[in-house]
Amino acid sequence: MRSVLIDTSKSPHAKLRPVPIGAVRLADGFWAPRLRTMREVTLPSQHEILEETGRIDNFRRASGKIKGEFKGLYFNDSDVYKWIEGCAYSLAYERDPKIEELADKVIDEIAEAQDEDGYLNTFFTFEKAGERWTNLRDMHELYCAGHLFHAAVAYRRATGKDKLLGVALRLADHIWERFGPEGEEGVPGHPQIEMALVELYRETGKRRYLELAKLFIDRRGKGLIGGSPYHIDHKPLRELGEVVGHAVRALYLNCGAADLFMETGEEALMAALERMWLNMTGRRMYITGGVGARYQGEAFGGDYELPNERAYAETCAAVANAMWNWRMLLATGEARFADVMELALYNGALSGISLDGKNYFYVNPLADRGGHRRRRWFDCACCPPNIVRLINSVPGMVYSVSEEGIWVHLYVEGEGRIELGDLQVGLRQLTGYPWEGEVRVEVDPPEEAEFSLMLRVPGWCGGASISVNGERVEDGAEPGSYFELRRRWRPGDEVEISFAMDVELLTAHPRVESSWGKAAIRRGPLVYCLEQADNPGFDVWCAYVDLNSRSSAGFRPDLLGGVAVVELSGKAADMALWGDDRLYAPTRTVLDGMKPVKLVFIPYFAWANREPGPMTVWVNALWS
Amino acid sequence: MRSVLIDTSKSPHAKLRPVPIGAVRLADGFWAPRLRTMREVTLPSQHEILEETGRIDNFRRASGKIKGEFKGLYFNDSDVYKWIEGCAYSLAYERDPKIEELADKVIDEIAEAQDEDGYLNTFFTFEKAGERWTNLRDMHELYCAGHLFHAAVAYRRATGKDKLLGVALRLADHIWERFGPEGEEGVPGHPQIEMALVELYRETGKRRYLELAKLFIDRRGKGLIGGSPYHIDHKPLRELGEVVGHAVRALYLNCGAADLFMETGEEALMAALERMWLNMTGRRMYITGGVGARYQGEAFGGDYELPNERAYAETCAAVANAMWNWRMLLATGEARFADVMELALYNGALSGISLDGKNYFYVNPLADRGGHRRRRWFDCACCPPNIVRLINSVPGMVYSVSEEGIWVHLYVEGEGRIELGDLQVGLRQLTGYPWEGEVRVEVDPPEEAEFSLMLRVPGWCGGASISVNGERVEDGAEPGSYFELRRRWRPGDEVEISFAMDVELLTAHPRVESSWGKAAIRRGPLVYCLEQADNPGFDVWCAYVDLNSRSSAGFRPDLLGGVAVVELSGKAADMALWGDDRLYAPTRTVLDGMKPVKLVFIPYFAWANREPGPMTVWVNALWS
Repeated sequence: MRSVLIDTSKSPHAKLRPVPIGAVRLADGFWAPRLRTMREVTLPSQHEILEETGRIDNFRRASGKIKGEFKGLYFNDSDVYKWIEGCAYSLAYERDPKIEELADKVIDEIAEAQDEDGYLNTFFTFEKAGERWTNLRDMHELYCAGHLFHAAVAYRRATGKDKLLGVALRLADHIWERFGPEGEEGVPGHPQIEMALVELYRETGKRRYLELAKLFIDRRGKGLIGGSPYHIDHKPLRELGEVVGHAVRALYLNCGAADLFMETGEEALMAALERMWLNMTGRRMYITGGVGARYQGEAFGGDYELPNERAYAETCAAVANAMWNWRMLLATGEARFADVMELALYNGALSGISLDGKNYFYVNPLADRGGHRRRRWFDCACCPPNIVRLINSVPGMVYSVSEEGIWVHLYVEGEGRIELGDLQVGLRQLTGYPWEGEVRVEVDPPEEAEFSLMLRVPGWCGGASISVNGERVEDGAEPGSYFELRRRWRPGDEVEISFAMDVELLTAHPRVESSWGKAAIRRGPLVYCLEQADNPGFDVWCAYVDLNSRSSAGFRPDLLGGVAVVELSGKAADMALWGDDRLYAPTRTVLDGMKPVKLVFIPYFAWANREPGPMTVWVNALWS
Repeated sequence: MRSVLIDTSKSPHAKLRPVPIGAVRLADGFWAPRLRTMREVTLPSQHEILEETGRIDNFRRASGKIKGEFKGLYFNDSDVYKWIEGCAYSLAYERDPKIEELADKVIDEIAEAQDEDGYLNTFFTFEKAGERWTNLRDMHELYCAGHLFHAAVAYRRATGKDKLLGVALRLADHIWERFGPEGEEGVPGHPQIEMALVELYRETGKRRYLELAKLFIDRRGKGLIGGSPYHIDHKPLRELGEVVGHAVRALYLNCGAADLFMETGEEALMAALERMWLNMTGRRMYITGGVGARYQGEAFGGDYELPNERAYAETCAAVANAMWNWRMLLATGEARFADVMELALYNGALSGISLDGKNYFYVNPLADRGGHRRRRWFDCACCPPNIVRLINSVPGMVYSVSEEGIWVHLYVEGEGRIELGDLQVGLRQLTGYPWEGEVRVEVDPPEEAEFSLMLRVPGWCGGASISVNGERVEDGAEPGSYFELRRRWRPGDEVEISFAMDVELLTAHPRVESSWGKAAIRRGPLVYCLEQADNPGFDVWCAYVDLNSRSSAGFRPDLLGGVAVVELSGKAADMALWGDDRLYAPTRTVLDGMKPVKLVFIPYFAWANREPGPMTVWVNALWS
């Protein structure tokens, strides 16, 4: 069985090799229902909208089947490709014939729209054909091509069907002729194609695709597309020290560089990625894993520029953050990358889709007055199919393998059949994660065999204890590391892990002016927020959490699809004292108006699924 | 003696009439030395820079005296005009022959640069002459003209010399021909000319200037210059409810509308100004009186969008805020306008210039890490001459008169000779304001006479007690009002006023996410800040002020030109615990690292006059 999602099986400089999506069965209450929703609701409804908005008609128009104007934005082809990629991961997990039929038909339309010379972009047809490749900076042709490559590779891996891959290769070869070593010095305005070309190389073994990926990275930063930080063209990637510019562009580029590193082992690439990673996680990332603070340019802000209400934090940027960290994890096996991947996945990215799987956030603020609501679609609809492909790739991110043995990255109830060399090892997780910190792992090799189980000890946990067959092997496994449990495993061995999953109060760096001095609640991998619906009687923006409060956490199966709520005590100021036109008031007046309250927090990803009202992640603190 | 600064003597709908700058002598330790610095240091040094940067040469070039290229930005003429306006106020206060000679010579150059048809703008000469008036939205010709009118009117009032006024009138008539009722539907891209035309009308009595001011206001908001909020062209002024767009444009426009109201009494104008004032002061103004929160477009942010480190708060916008509120006060006699005028004057505007009078802020953040420093000049140098003209106009803002009698707006040690109808009343203030809240006013009419003394009771004070000749007349004068003291005054009568000037801790509205839950220190009209230089041993950004702390305030003649510092106790977290790459930490860790500290605050206007270091206006609070 081939990996569908980033196949590092033969990548010489990748630490980890993939465990295919199809080798994993989830049986939990968190991801399994979400995968079902993607399959039953989200993918079909997105297909409807792709039809309704003319995105598929654009292909029919290009092939001459229908007449009319090109519909929508010039990069709309990419939404169709991303949807196919999402279908592919879904099919790899469960081969639903309805989804496959939908996808096959769309692929037929795509194939027919391709020109004889391999060119494919439905915007640049007929009256616009003369403008092909004339504005790489702004017109997203290479970006769309990259999404096609990703979709084609994933679809072939999932289904064995290579029609779309054929289309992709013809286009890739066309691009190679035009912008390869003998061609023009083209640079994509919106990175994406770099990682896609590496995957195309992994799938086909043709080195030209890897070379082209490297060329696109090497040419960047020389001002060939204007030299702006927005396009990350102000400096060569290998010299970058900070994440800047358009957040999705920046992180897609970093994905491509990480993919390239796994094939070439070029240290200068990894050194630059490492600097950027430290800058991002240390100074420019929301506590939710969201990134790209600024509305202006959908961009990373400066160090510590992390406004909450005016956070941009595009869903796609959180998805890209998870994608980049997944690649960094594959490259290195370092747990800090798994931590950030998990963080973005469960929080800043997951908030991008409603619980019913039909509505989306483009922007993910950390505080809101109730006006920000998910929408069915967007003219610029990059986010909806992006969150789908991320959720559908979750089964592929649970495990990896390496020379040492089997790596467990994500804790999710369910089973895996893992190929470790010639050995096929069954693993079964029993856990209430992310709501509970206890995990039982049943290890089932066909016969007694020595290998390591690399157990991720999440950075968020206060500590972990680990037992094997009832015998304690570790009491102090270090959070933010993989704990190597090496032994001769026998069929039926059981590992019991207990992660301390307390309610944690976190404080932001003093330079984060919107959050410093306030507290955010985290429990396990989940960041919490106060939403008005759970807190009648006071405005949640006026709340103060008592730092000495006892906390409690309890699972509520009836609430928001089943979530653990966190309760803390505190006080609330009286919003009424401000009236309409008062901006500053004596502190004493505010103090005197405070009353004791109980604060009920829900997971951030679940907000805005009920009636509109104020929400905030960061809550003022009563320091004593 | 004529008023130099906004002459409402005959404005039918102005509540207040001016007391000329020349009728006031300041003898205090705050403004008197600043006026001297303006005269001896700032105006001469700015003249040097105007020469050095080619701003005056541009006029010589236009008149054919010198050859060469136009230098600098296309609106640089306005800097020269604003400098002359600043000279005029200075000369009205004290007729320094050196300043007058400098100004006269510059005026000669200006006059010679004017075309025969009255046109004057040194950018649009020779090769650019064909482009005159072709792009009113972007090219600032009407803006520059307005600054010329202001300068010309002020200079004539101050010196009696009308050469520059002649130039101004020729240009004004040229504009009238071109854009008057019979001409093109021109709209200034950058408002300014509106208020200047009203002043030109007041000075000359020619109604066409008033009509033209009204036309420029009436035409705005119809999309004639593109319809953007940036240009405040998205809606007619009379329909505006919020302050939006480029802050200086917005407030200059409001100045013009207030001036127009004072002549026409049109209620729709005042109603719109009132709505915008409530919106600005209630939702979009920094505690310093600074406005225009956003870098992007130098614009007002949304409601409650008031970041501190990334505050834009242009010096010119705070100056414009003072100018607008001065006009609103003249129109209505309402103390709330005097409060905002005083606030902007002493804080958000005054911070725009260094204590030595030689360096300027363009941007006025409320928190900084030490990198933001005043500069000698800017390519776009609107702020330096703007802060000069504001400071030099202070003597003209101390008093007004009305039917009721004499109004005292600002408390400043010194004397005034005030014409109240036929009566010339001497007033003498003895006070340590703004450092102390006690004021003695000696009232000296030539003979016994009945009139009111309208004493401003500042909105910031906790209360006021007022005595006349040792006899208490009021114990509870309401803050934010004028207290009317009506009696038959005799030569030598003494009024004693005591304003409660406690150290006050203020809290921002819960929707101001950067400041809510924090405290700002105000004492009297001054907003304070923590600057690193006074607080060794901890990073001021990590400080917490204890809300139950006893405060003390003491005047330090040696410090920053003489300021009262405020001391409070609190705690400070340890910045070191964050290291370089940590963004979120357990609250408990932060708590455990706190140590008790003494916090020393200085007035905000005085920051960045010593070695660079962190500064913050808003300080976290220890709530109990």
